[in-house]
Amino acid sequence: MQTAAEPTRQQLAQRYLQVRAFSEQLCEPLAIEDYGLQTAVEASPPKWHIAHVSWFFENFLLRPLLPGYQVFHSRFDHLFNSYYEQTESGFWPRAKRGLLSRPTVAEVYDYRKHVDHGMQRLIQECDGEDWRLAQERILIGLNHEQQHQELLLTDIKHHLAFNPLRPAYRSDLDTSAPEQAVPLTFTAIEGGMTELGATGAGFAYDNEHPRHPTWLAPYRLADRLVTNGEYLEFIADGAYANPAIWLSDAWAVIRQQGWQAPLYWEQIDGSWHEMTLAGLIPLQPALPVCHLSYFEAEAYARWAGKRLPSEAEWEHAAAQRPIEGLFVDSGRLHPRAASVGELSQLYGDCWEWTGSAYLPYPGYRPAAGAIGEYNGKFMCNQMVLRGGSCATSRDHLRPSYRNFCYPHERWQFSGLRLADAIDGGAA
Amino acid sequence: MQTAAEPTRQQLAQRYLQVRAFSEQLCEPLAIEDYGLQTAVEASPPKWHIAHVSWFFENFLLRPLLPGYQVFHSRFDHLFNSYYEQTESGFWPRAKRGLLSRPTVAEVYDYRKHVDHGMQRLIQECDGEDWRLAQERILIGLNHEQQHQELLLTDIKHHLAFNPLRPAYRSDLDTSAPEQAVPLTFTAIEGGMTELGATGAGFAYDNEHPRHPTWLAPYRLADRLVTNGEYLEFIADGAYANPAIWLSDAWAVIRQQGWQAPLYWEQIDGSWHEMTLAGLIPLQPALPVCHLSYFEAEAYARWAGKRLPSEAEWEHAAAQRPIEGLFVDSGRLHPRAASVGELSQLYGDCWEWTGSAYLPYPGYRPAAGAIGEYNGKFMCNQMVLRGGSCATSRDHLRPSYRNFCYPHERWQFSGLRLADAIDGGAA
Amino acid sequence: MQTAAEPTRQQLAQRYLQVRAFSEQLCEPLAIEDYGLQTAVEASPPKWHIAHVSWFFENFLLRPLLPGYQVFHSRFDHLFNSYYEQTESGFWPRAKRGLLSRPTVAEVYDYRKHVDHGMQRLIQECDGEDWRLAQERILIGLNHEQQHQELLLTDIKHHLAFNPLRPAYRSDLDTSAPEQAVPLTFTAIEGGMTELGATGAGFAYDNEHPRHPTWLAPYRLADRLVTNGEYLEFIADGAYANPAIWLSDAWAVIRQQGWQAPLYWEQIDGSWHEMTLAGLIPLQPALPVCHLSYFEAEAYARWAGKRLPSEAEWEHAAAQRPIEGLFVDSGRLHPRAASVGELSQLYGDCWEWTGSAYLPYPGYRPAAGAIGEYNGKFMCNQMVLRGGSCATSRDHLRPSYRNFCYPHERWQFSGLRLADAIDGGAA
Amino acid sequence: MQTAAEPTRQQLAQRYLQVRAFSEQLCEPLAIEDYGLQTAVEASPPKWHIAHVSWFFENFLLRPLLPGYQVFHSRFDHLFNSYYEQTESGFWPRAKRGLLSRPTVAEVYDYRKHVDHGMQRLIQECDGEDWRLAQERILIGLNHEQQHQELLLTDIKHHLAFNPLRPAYRSDLDTSAPEQAVPLTFTAIEGGMTELGATGAGFAYDNEHPRHPTWLAPYRLADRLVTNGEYLEFIADGAYANPAIWLSDAWAVIRQQGWQAPLYWEQIDGSWHEMTLAGLIPLQPALPVCHLSYFEAEAYARWAGKRLPSEAEWEHAAAQRPIEGLFVDSGRLHPRAASVGELSQLYGDCWEWTGSAYLPYPGYRPAAGAIGEYNGKFMCNQMVLRGGSCATSRDHLRPSYRNFCYPHERWQFSGLRLADAIDGGAA
Ligand SMILES: [Fe+3]
Ligand SMILES: [Fe+3]
Ligand SMILES: [Fe+3]
Ligand SMILES: [Fe+3]
Repeated sequence: MQTAAEPTRQQLAQRYLQVRAFSEQLCEPLAIEDYGLQTAVEASPPKWHIAHVSWFFENFLLRPLLPGYQVFHSRFDHLFNSYYEQTESGFWPRAKRGLLSRPTVAEVYDYRKHVDHGMQRLIQECDGEDWRLAQERILIGLNHEQQHQELLLTDIKHHLAFNPLRPAYRSDLDTSAPEQAVPLTFTAIEGGMTELGATGAGFAYDNEHPRHPTWLAPYRLADRLVTNGEYLEFIADGAYANPAIWLSDAWAVIRQQGWQAPLYWEQIDGSWHEMTLAGLIPLQPALPVCHLSYFEAEAYARWAGKRLPSEAEWEHAAAQRPIEGLFVDSGRLHPRAASVGELSQLYGDCWEWTGSAYLPYPGYRPAAGAIGEYNGKFMCNQMVLRGGSCATSRDHLRPSYRNFCYPHERWQFSGLRLADAIDGGAA
Repeated sequence: MQTAAEPTRQQLAQRYLQVRAFSEQLCEPLAIEDYGLQTAVEASPPKWHIAHVSWFFENFLLRPLLPGYQVFHSRFDHLFNSYYEQTESGFWPRAKRGLLSRPTVAEVYDYRKHVDHGMQRLIQECDGEDWRLAQERILIGLNHEQQHQELLLTDIKHHLAFNPLRPAYRSDLDTSAPEQAVPLTFTAIEGGMTELGATGAGFAYDNEHPRHPTWLAPYRLADRLVTNGEYLEFIADGAYANPAIWLSDAWAVIRQQGWQAPLYWEQIDGSWHEMTLAGLIPLQPALPVCHLSYFEAEAYARWAGKRLPSEAEWEHAAAQRPIEGLFVDSGRLHPRAASVGELSQLYGDCWEWTGSAYLPYPGYRPAAGAIGEYNGKFMCNQMVLRGGSCATSRDHLRPSYRNFCYPHERWQFSGLRLADAIDGGAA
Repeated sequence: MQTAAEPTRQQLAQRYLQVRAFSEQLCEPLAIEDYGLQTAVEASPPKWHIAHVSWFFENFLLRPLLPGYQVFHSRFDHLFNSYYEQTESGFWPRAKRGLLSRPTVAEVYDYRKHVDHGMQRLIQECDGEDWRLAQERILIGLNHEQQHQELLLTDIKHHLAFNPLRPAYRSDLDTSAPEQAVPLTFTAIEGGMTELGATGAGFAYDNEHPRHPTWLAPYRLADRLVTNGEYLEFIADGAYANPAIWLSDAWAVIRQQGWQAPLYWEQIDGSWHEMTLAGLIPLQPALPVCHLSYFEAEAYARWAGKRLPSEAEWEHAAAQRPIEGLFVDSGRLHPRAASVGELSQLYGDCWEWTGSAYLPYPGYRPAAGAIGEYNGKFMCNQMVLRGGSCATSRDHLRPSYRNFCYPHERWQFSGLRLADAIDGGAA
Repeated sequence: MQTAAEPTRQQLAQRYLQVRAFSEQLCEPLAIEDYGLQTAVEASPPKWHIAHVSWFFENFLLRPLLPGYQVFHSRFDHLFNSYYEQTESGFWPRAKRGLLSRPTVAEVYDYRKHVDHGMQRLIQECDGEDWRLAQERILIGLNHEQQHQELLLTDIKHHLAFNPLRPAYRSDLDTSAPEQAVPLTFTAIEGGMTELGATGAGFAYDNEHPRHPTWLAPYRLADRLVTNGEYLEFIADGAYANPAIWLSDAWAVIRQQGWQAPLYWEQIDGSWHEMTLAGLIPLQPALPVCHLSYFEAEAYARWAGKRLPSEAEWEHAAAQRPIEGLFVDSGRLHPRAASVGELSQLYGDCWEWTGSAYLPYPGYRPAAGAIGEYNGKFMCNQMVLRGGSCATSRDHLRPSYRNFCYPHERWQFSGLRLADAIDGGAA
């Protein structure tokens, strides 16, 4: 992972506190009982997130770089390592993170404080070559924690939606929407030779490197995300019962899981509702459709006579535009209806599925050692999403940012934007 | 389920309070986080037990028999019904009881109070035919809660033992043992025509009825339970690696699960330890071996040139003897070494696997309606255990009491007593 | 396994040829393609049966007792050992018996001839102590082959019924039936002290020993098997959709497997048909209901206000009566309607589920060595069936004969006879 | 699927006979018993292949386009449809193709003859618009049959290798190899703007269209495939025990499946052997490593400091070169050692894993109707392989040909060629 402009120690310390505080702020509405839940393999307990992000700093910074650092508990590196095979401790199985009542929530917060204390020392005391490495890793650690902040929200949503009482995370959230979505229009983009990947200005993960040339045919992108109302037409057309509409692997999942609609949709007395962080609400047609799998996004796009954009197309279009949109910072925690305008909702609201597989850029090299496992080892079987969501921090995003999920996953805030060829064909 | 001598309303009310209070007392050492855990399908979360026993009173007494009773929450009968198919509510899947953070622990205790209040009213106000039915069901409900008290302890033990930190439920428990077990001796019993089943004096479950004649050949019973030390010899003889020792179904489980020893045993630096409610302790050879499956008990007995007693043999021997032994009332929560004497440890310490399948007694009839599902529908594929354990209440037991488990289950406090023919052969 | 009257060498040789020839006769209608199929774990390929019964003679007689015997192929003991853990060869996994195209059918028949040749030599040449052992094992081997002859038919039926073309094993079989069954009547039997188990006159398996006293209350047995017509009423009453009717384990299987009727029943344009060895035929109400699991037999009996007989009740009633009925010898290969009379169909037609678990008789001891695995290691989780079926050889049966299956299994010709207490209650 | 130059009716008829005959020729060494085997979900029984390719002609040509055509059997479209959801018949589950003994092999060959007869009529009689469609589909049908010819060989190999007797498909095959492989050298290729996809000259599948521009950085390709000897070094380096070497999904498969080497490798008394269509032979270091998954190919390349080529890189290099190499036509049926020279083994020997996900080319449109399911619906979760193998027909290949497999699959003849950046780095 490469970094750019060097912040001062004080800036780093402040940034550290700010990011760390936000994790705790997100947990404030939780009951102690909510902290331990794991209702799906991919959705971790909040307690685990809170501990794991601390472990990240402990393992990659405090243990190697802070002389005299004492670990808080000798087994926590086993319990809170996520998936790094190249650490001695091994790791507790991912699927069983919800089966540990101890350490308690209070003990996990003590662990955080212990790590925070160490990090403050490290930021003041570390020097020389170590400090160069530390700086780089602190940035990674903070970005890592921001990623887990988004996961905290998506996972809590999953855990609470699983409960038949459909409890709200917060009952005071605004989920309002206009009656109607703005009309669906497209913006034409010229293409040609372009560059893809991180520019080197500012932090970027290793998987955004190296920046490299690529060629794009002219294309068009929709000016907003697909809406719930539009997706309802797809359902009404019998999509979930018609194998002709789906990829082969998609149809297998649909039959096995019994999917009939996006995740979190349910019919009550014949009318569609949607589970949100504000609880169960009537489905609002003007809002972006959300919590789609790649399978659903891809099938919808084909059904609509369009296609998904490639990640190069998305990045080329986004690179010129300001990073504006509905982020976690807004406190809404649910996507918002699009405004009129060119390429609205590029950032925030919902992650946008692309038609690109998550693969290494030509010349990609992961970092040496365990930290090299951060991104590189997942470059298979997943598809790229772009643009962030209503659960992403504004300052976590950049045009070259690559998110990735398995094509059947849909517990993230994931939607889609249509694309087509310049002449309106799906090419 | 048939009952006997009729207690007064006041006696019933007091008994009710006493039993209910003990459940809460057992939960006192728990952290809030412990209440929600489910680390095996058969081991429910403490919170669920606490709510389910209240639901039992609500569903079988308050709703049908207390005029004007308002349920605490309209969905709790769905969440806290265990397995009664003949109730309208249906029930939340057993394997997913650990995936509900709401209602919170505090709400579940409020539910208990609400039910307790209703039950006090019912005990005072109910009359006529209803009161006859109510009395019968209150006894069932209290015995039911006592069963769940034992499960609370066995399940908590499972949940905490699952945690790699091996936390203790209570660190102040006595798990002491003498250096050596008393020698293994046998008591001869004459047999002949005898009667099996509940006598009608005092409460008994329906599955203990009807009392019926049966014939017993002369037999011998060991005077104490098999010990850890004896079981270690079985292990040292290579039992867990030798298919010739096992039933076919047993060997399949051993290979699939990788069993090498009883549940909760683990080797640390070459010496055996045992997880207890007091935490991890060195294995003590003089204590009864515990947490065995039927598969292990049966194989051990054959390996030792003996066999398991039948339930008729056990009951015939026990019927004459006082109900004395180490129960939950002692507060030890772990079996104790046997004293010298005839047929010691018949009651308490460990449930004793018998060689009898759990089947209906000739002429057995379950009660009508949902409550008839209490025992009858489990009469297949399970084996009978007798005598109670260190986690059973003293006043919950009687000679005719039938416990039952699947042959692979071993999370109960289950051990074994050897039997043989009068001539010392396994017959 | 204990034997009785000693046949001459010539009688044994002739009996051997006769039994062996019948296996091959049963395979005559098969296409080469049919020999290799395995459509369920418990149903082996015909080729495997044909080879395995030869292996039994090779392994337990020729290798240990015939000097100079050369095995036909060094790997066949691995391929055709069924489940004997105490042989060096190990065994090919049961679930994968259908995945071996080699040895070919012709090679397997060569193997049979090779073994037959060895057995003829052994019957002539073996002497002294060896001959005593040989005689005992030849009887076991022949009875073993007869059991596999029944399995050949039940397994072929399963394999062909699995095929959507529903091919017949033989299209020339008689499956006729009268319009109506004889009325359902009961015979009262007095009970009292009785003896259960093999008498010692003639061959019996080890699991029929030792003969031992038992006590029986007076009881009644139905004079015929339950019919298709009667079972249709059970279905029409909604049995397969009503959990209140079933054991808990039964209901789990019904939901998981989607059972709606006995195995091999299917509805075509609204009318019930039954797959038979003669192909698919309209269901005939007067014939015995067949291919039931214990779960279905037990539930039907309770639904009908009756119960299943115990194995002691069955044997006590059967011991006095001649072994007459519809066996494989008749060539019908499908059960026949009952005639009027006391306790008709006791033998043959369909195996009768009893309410008894398959457990060792008091004092049971399996033989030493691998052959001791024949019966003993299956004494868990299974229920006893009695009386043989239309696929059993007449001379394979005796009153003390114990068959056993898991309660969910139904690919055998298994039906039921009702029992009740002398006063007509289910006791 | 688009075609090019139009062959005459006679040419088509002759081509048809030729392709059809080759399928039957490949089956000649089979025993009847081999025809029905299915030892893995992805490996179909030879009988099924033989029938399915006939069904393809029946379903897409004879039924729609030959007036008066009578199907051979009304249920064969259900049995022999592979995966086309848009046909009325539905299809027999893929995983159960090996569980059908009927139709017999002889009946399936009768079915072939029936279809051949119909096809001859159709080629002579069809006219007008229908004939245009027919021509197109005949080409698809013949190419389809050629694909299944390759699968016949790979599936037979799998079925026979599964058998512990390790029978040979043909014992007369040449599997010889030189002592040493030619040295590993690389050819530099300039890159730049290039075009990818079918040129329109000659038959191509729909997934090779549309031809489209793409940009390539300069790169190098190895001049031969990776050898067994080189792969042995990877194993000797502990690769299969070291998670740091693998993609995350790869490591999960390795642990679950217990992979220790490529498919078909086994150690006998400490020396490596390889199962081939000629039976089990000692592993020969100079031959190309074969039967690798993408996981293994990708990991090996990274371990070697290189990478896999993209499909664009492969095609760009191959497009200029003649289609020469070791194909099924040679009759060797096993890869051959490379000769000295630039980019040898590009075609034939082993399919070459690329680093490209199997996704639609920009502007891709599948054909309308069921035939559109041929390729398009598999464009997810798979990786592209290029170049054909020793089991592919020479005239089935072209530079734009795209094969695809799931990354864990390795029962095809799949190996790898290394690539790197022009400066020797993995980029
Ligand atoms: Fe992480
Ligand atoms: Fe209960
Ligand atoms: Fe056998
Ligand atoms: Fe095909």
